[in-house]
Amino acid sequence: MPTVAYQGEPGAFSEQAAFDHFGVDAIPQPCTTFDAVFGAVTDGASDYGVVPVENSLAGSIHRNYDLLMRHHLYIVGEVILRISHNLIALPGVQAPDIHRVYSHWQALDQCEQSLTRLLPGVERIQVYDTAGSVKMLAEEGRRDTAAIASKRAAELYNLSILREAIEDDATNYTRFAVLSRQPAEIAPGAACKTSIVFAMRNVPGSLFRAMAVFALRDIDLTKIESRPLQGSPWEYLFYLDFGGNAHDDVCRRAINHLSEQTTILRVLGSYPRAAAISVK
Amino acid sequence: MPTVAYQGEPGAFSEQAAFDHFGVDAIPQPCTTFDAVFGAVTDGASDYGVVPVENSLAGSIHRNYDLLMRHHLYIVGEVILRISHNLIALPGVQAPDIHRVYSHWQALDQCEQSLTRLLPGVERIQVYDTAGSVKMLAEEGRRDTAAIASKRAAELYNLSILREAIEDDATNYTRFAVLSRQPAEIAPGAACKTSIVFAMRNVPGSLFRAMAVFALRDIDLTKIESRPLQGSPWEYLFYLDFGGNAHDDVCRRAINHLSEQTTILRVLGSYPRAAAISVK
Repeated sequence: MPTVAYQGEPGAFSEQAAFDHFGVDAIPQPCTTFDAVFGAVTDGASDYGVVPVENSLAGSIHRNYDLLMRHHLYIVGEVILRISHNLIALPGVQAPDIHRVYSHWQALDQCEQSLTRLLPGVERIQVYDTAGSVKMLAEEGRRDTAAIASKRAAELYNLSILREAIEDDATNYTRFAVLSRQPAEIAPGAACKTSIVFAMRNVPGSLFRAMAVFALRDIDLTKIESRPLQGSPWEYLFYLDFGGNAHDDVCRRAINHLSEQTTILRVLGSYPRAAAISVK
Repeated sequence: MPTVAYQGEPGAFSEQAAFDHFGVDAIPQPCTTFDAVFGAVTDGASDYGVVPVENSLAGSIHRNYDLLMRHHLYIVGEVILRISHNLIALPGVQAPDIHRVYSHWQALDQCEQSLTRLLPGVERIQVYDTAGSVKMLAEEGRRDTAAIASKRAAELYNLSILREAIEDDATNYTRFAVLSRQPAEIAPGAACKTSIVFAMRNVPGSLFRAMAVFALRDIDLTKIESRPLQGSPWEYLFYLDFGGNAHDDVCRRAINHLSEQTTILRVLGSYPRAAAISVK
């Protein structure tokens, strides 16, 4: 059974993503930070890693984009979870008792308007992980505090669900990348995506010419993300996802063409496209 | 004298940006959140607002991009500060005493490697503001905790500087946007930037065609940022900065051309380009 590193505590959405991708027999290995997940896969302590890269409401998890650049791992798969958040508290606690709420900043962001409506003036306290916020609340036994996390986290730590589905928007999806030391082996003809990262000389029209590489070959871009290029203020690394397999002719030619214009270019991996899965 | 809303406590870098832009007679008005800054300018409680939009190491402050879309204010100026961070503690406290460090997540990010070197294993605790972390430390009087902030913040709260310039990279700049209810009046011929936000139908080649609008007119893009389009998973709003004044012919034509392709398009403002200023 593969071992799969993830950031958070048991009950975290990343753990769920690991089970969805590798099956219920996978052995999840909780880590305290995203850096530790990348480290565990790099040094062989885990076979794979699963990290969130993007939420459809709160946006990208930039730390993981930065870590993709810093480490030399491959993206070998993606998992898309439809995420529903729950307001969790000690048994018997009611909404008027609550003055503080713990969760990961992305979960707090995703429930921002619900929190303002349900718990006006509540203090939002950022915790490293959604499931970790439930664990912390259970350990502290505070009756003035709630947490936001999955149903599974509430069950694992024996707390009550005060309100289900408190996310502001039902179109709340998180996309996870599956990391490995080896690139994926992909069946010929499978519907794929490829992720790359590149930087260009900062000259007028450079991004236009980079986009042309793909547009002129009818390759569909699904995502572009810019991140600061360390040491070069106001220059950027671009993370790009596009449809296709980097080993197929058209994509290979596009990447070669792009390399004529870039100062940095890495293929992070080609992997099968995923469909969304619901989690409560 | 203009009143200028900013997020944080006295001694915050945003307050410094307000003084740099409006002069030392400006009346800074501290707010607890970025939302409150936008709110204060929108409802007339403040003449202007100053919010950070981007750091050259840690990246964009996405909340402020989202708030630009949610409110109807204009960007009327930019301020670029060269930011230096200081490790601040109670008088007499030494490095080995320190097990926790408070600061804003961007400051923690910007000092990540220094912290690992200077204070191995230190617990990083996110606080809403750099200067706020110093205020909190002063109030709590904890001798096991340090804060990361400006020299001015250390002075204001009578704490000591344990180590200067702990940022990982000297190329640490933060760019702030100056917000107003009215667009800027710009002298003809002044070197300008314009910020816009747009969304497009999600069809292959759409970003390429949007970039073409600018490239074919030799308009230089200085920044592109994608943010999730709420309610449409995996579709994006693009925030774009380019050289030029939206009222000049070439830029006006480019914006009209872009509007043929967009589902959402707003000009956030044209404003004079700024040069970087050093702050310790």
